Amino acid sequence: MFGFSVISTDPRSGARLGRLVTPHGAVDTPAFMPVGTRGAIKGITPRQLRETGTQIMLGNAYHLQVRPGADCIAALGGLHRFSGWDGPILTDSGGFQVFSLAQINKVTDEGVTFRSHFDGAPMYLDAATSIAIQEQLGADIIMAFDQCPPIPCPATEVSKAVERTVRWAEQCKRAHQREDQWLFGIVQGGLDPALRADCVRRLTEIGFDGYAVGGLSVGETRAEMIGLLEQVTPLLPAERPRYLMGVGTPYDLLESVKRGIDLFDCVLPTRNGRNAHAFTATGRLKLRNQQYRLADEPLEADCDCYTCAHFSRAYLRHLFITGEMLGPTLASIHNLRFFQRLMLRIRGLLPTGMLERITEEYPVARGEVAN
Amino acid sequence: MFGFSVISTDPRSGARLGRLVTPHGAVDTPAFMPVGTRGAIKGITPRQLRETGTQIMLGNAYHLQVRPGADCIAALGGLHRFSGWDGPILTDSGGFQVFSLAQINKVTDEGVTFRSHFDGAPMYLDAATSIAIQEQLGADIIMAFDQCPPIPCPATEVSKAVERTVRWAEQCKRAHQREDQWLFGIVQGGLDPALRADCVRRLTEIGFDGYAVGGLSVGETRAEMIGLLEQVTPLLPAERPRYLMGVGTPYDLLESVKRGIDLFDCVLPTRNGRNAHAFTATGRLKLRNQQYRLADEPLEADCDCYTCAHFSRAYLRHLFITGEMLGPTLASIHNLRFFQRLMLRIRGLLPTGMLERITEEYPVARGEVAN
Repeated sequence: MFGFSVISTDPRSGARLGRLVTPHGAVDTPAFMPVGTRGAIKGITPRQLRETGTQIMLGNAYHLQVRPGADCIAALGGLHRFSGWDGPILTDSGGFQVFSLAQINKVTDEGVTFRSHFDGAPMYLDAATSIAIQEQLGADIIMAFDQCPPIPCPATEVSKAVERTVRWAEQCKRAHQREDQWLFGIVQGGLDPALRADCVRRLTEIGFDGYAVGGLSVGETRAEMIGLLEQVTPLLPAERPRYLMGVGTPYDLLESVKRGIDLFDCVLPTRNGRNAHAFTATGRLKLRNQQYRLADEPLEADCDCYTCAHFSRAYLRHLFITGEMLGPTLASIHNLRFFQRLMLRIRGLLPTGMLERITEEYPVARGEVAN
Repeated sequence: MFGFSVISTDPRSGARLGRLVTPHGAVDTPAFMPVGTRGAIKGITPRQLRETGTQIMLGNAYHLQVRPGADCIAALGGLHRFSGWDGPILTDSGGFQVFSLAQINKVTDEGVTFRSHFDGAPMYLDAATSIAIQEQLGADIIMAFDQCPPIPCPATEVSKAVERTVRWAEQCKRAHQREDQWLFGIVQGGLDPALRADCVRRLTEIGFDGYAVGGLSVGETRAEMIGLLEQVTPLLPAERPRYLMGVGTPYDLLESVKRGIDLFDCVLPTRNGRNAHAFTATGRLKLRNQQYRLADEPLEADCDCYTCAHFSRAYLRHLFITGEMLGPTLASIHNLRFFQRLMLRIRGLLPTGMLERITEEYPVARGEVAN
């Protein structure tokens, strides 16, 4: 029912081409997961999502527990049936969201008492609860409950977060029952390589189906993130999938793939789409700009998405200027397809040893171009 | 290139089954036109619109002139190409919008000076300008520029509006050049049958490709509207299409079809969809209601729309409660399909002489049910 295999590796970097098999279908890696926080990609139907080339969607245990409640989703047949997305799903544990969105009342070694961001209702989350919620949701891949500290953060706090993350990971492993779900551990440790190495060692001793690098993309520089990855990913078991949480830009994706990451998730394509920013290989288009008033060309000339096949930049601009809902939807479709085409091209170049060619085809992936 | 034929008539009412042929395709009548005010049906792609069974879309000369400007749309190949909807389009002249939305500065027998609702920019519209704009937009059917008084309204005002409407209709007829567009006249006259009859007589003397009944659904009761229609439609040329502007509910549609109307437009399916109201044959569902929290059934059991095929009432409720954009989109898809299925059924029953059966299948069309 489950499997992960590395099909080929890049001799010039740590990049690897792989295939992740889940009960709801296969995922070619390196893969990008669009974010369906509340069980829906904002403004996008599951059919439109499928057409962007997306193979796996992300959902959020925290948000779905707040509304409509995991018990509700379970009663309705689980998250796949509820959301209408019948492909693979990964749910985050709620750890990151509790620490970034909720109004925290108390954190102990056992769990977190907080008020929901939605209506201030008192809630409690710990390892066992997070797993119970994620088992009710029924995603193919679920995540251990972790504590994600910000960057920068006092060393004692980071160290404490690692202790809790490992302790909670153990509890998650024990609590996890469903055999049709894979459980991933999350590596914390901020920007301290020794703490990260310690966390990896202890998580691999517990043993998980895959490993995520968490606690990045939370305030550090790009160079710090890549530098940290360079030290951490080689420590992760080569035969298990590696997931970099909450990342990122085309540059981040390429550089992280080269450090051996297999899975990514990020709100960029949809959030930027809603804000009238369209991704292209050469940079971001700000679609409200006057310069597109008469632009009778698609967002990207060689893009095969529904938006580029049917609409001009001028029409997209018109939709955003007049506040039409269709603007965010069409821009998000293009952006999602842009990310999936980028990953497709990365997967295509990877076995040829010419992965660096991607920066010729996608100048945005060079890092010096704003994107 | 153009044609309208009455295929069959209902011996028990004024209802007629017809077919309208335009340069961009045929329309089976009686037909319902979804409203794409600014060149987009809110939240719906052209492909989704096509799948609801929609054959013709409405656009608005006023809104499109305000943003992005008819010159801009003309430079981009016209409204069909701009909007990505390659089926038939009808544009309203701007008369109704100028009198209902804009801040009017001055109305003379020549035209209207006003400030746009969008940014207060000074604008001027008259018969020739409206036709020039609509020729630039390039819809298949365009409307004469009219003055639409509210109901109730002093008799002298209504009379004056009829005079202007006829005068402007003449000017529109003279100004209209494009042979690939049909021009419809608009009958005004409030609730006064004599004024309406006079308006019909003078418009038919000028001669139009079709005739619209305007100035209804602006404050009168249902009984007043139907009563007025009963007197007006028999006066309209039987061989020309008849369009009731801005109408309406399932009840309004059925009763108006029985009075001989062929075309309708209304924002109800999309506006209600955005407001979490779903149409069903037995009444409206308020999707935010707690009662749907665990409702594992589609909006309508026998509906063949994308929404009903894939999503439960509970999921729709969740989307609306959490403010997800997908809620309005999915509810609008269903509501549009609901209206198109209603029209399809009306067209199916019409030649059998059993049109009244529709009120058994669609209790909402009886009028006493809230809808």
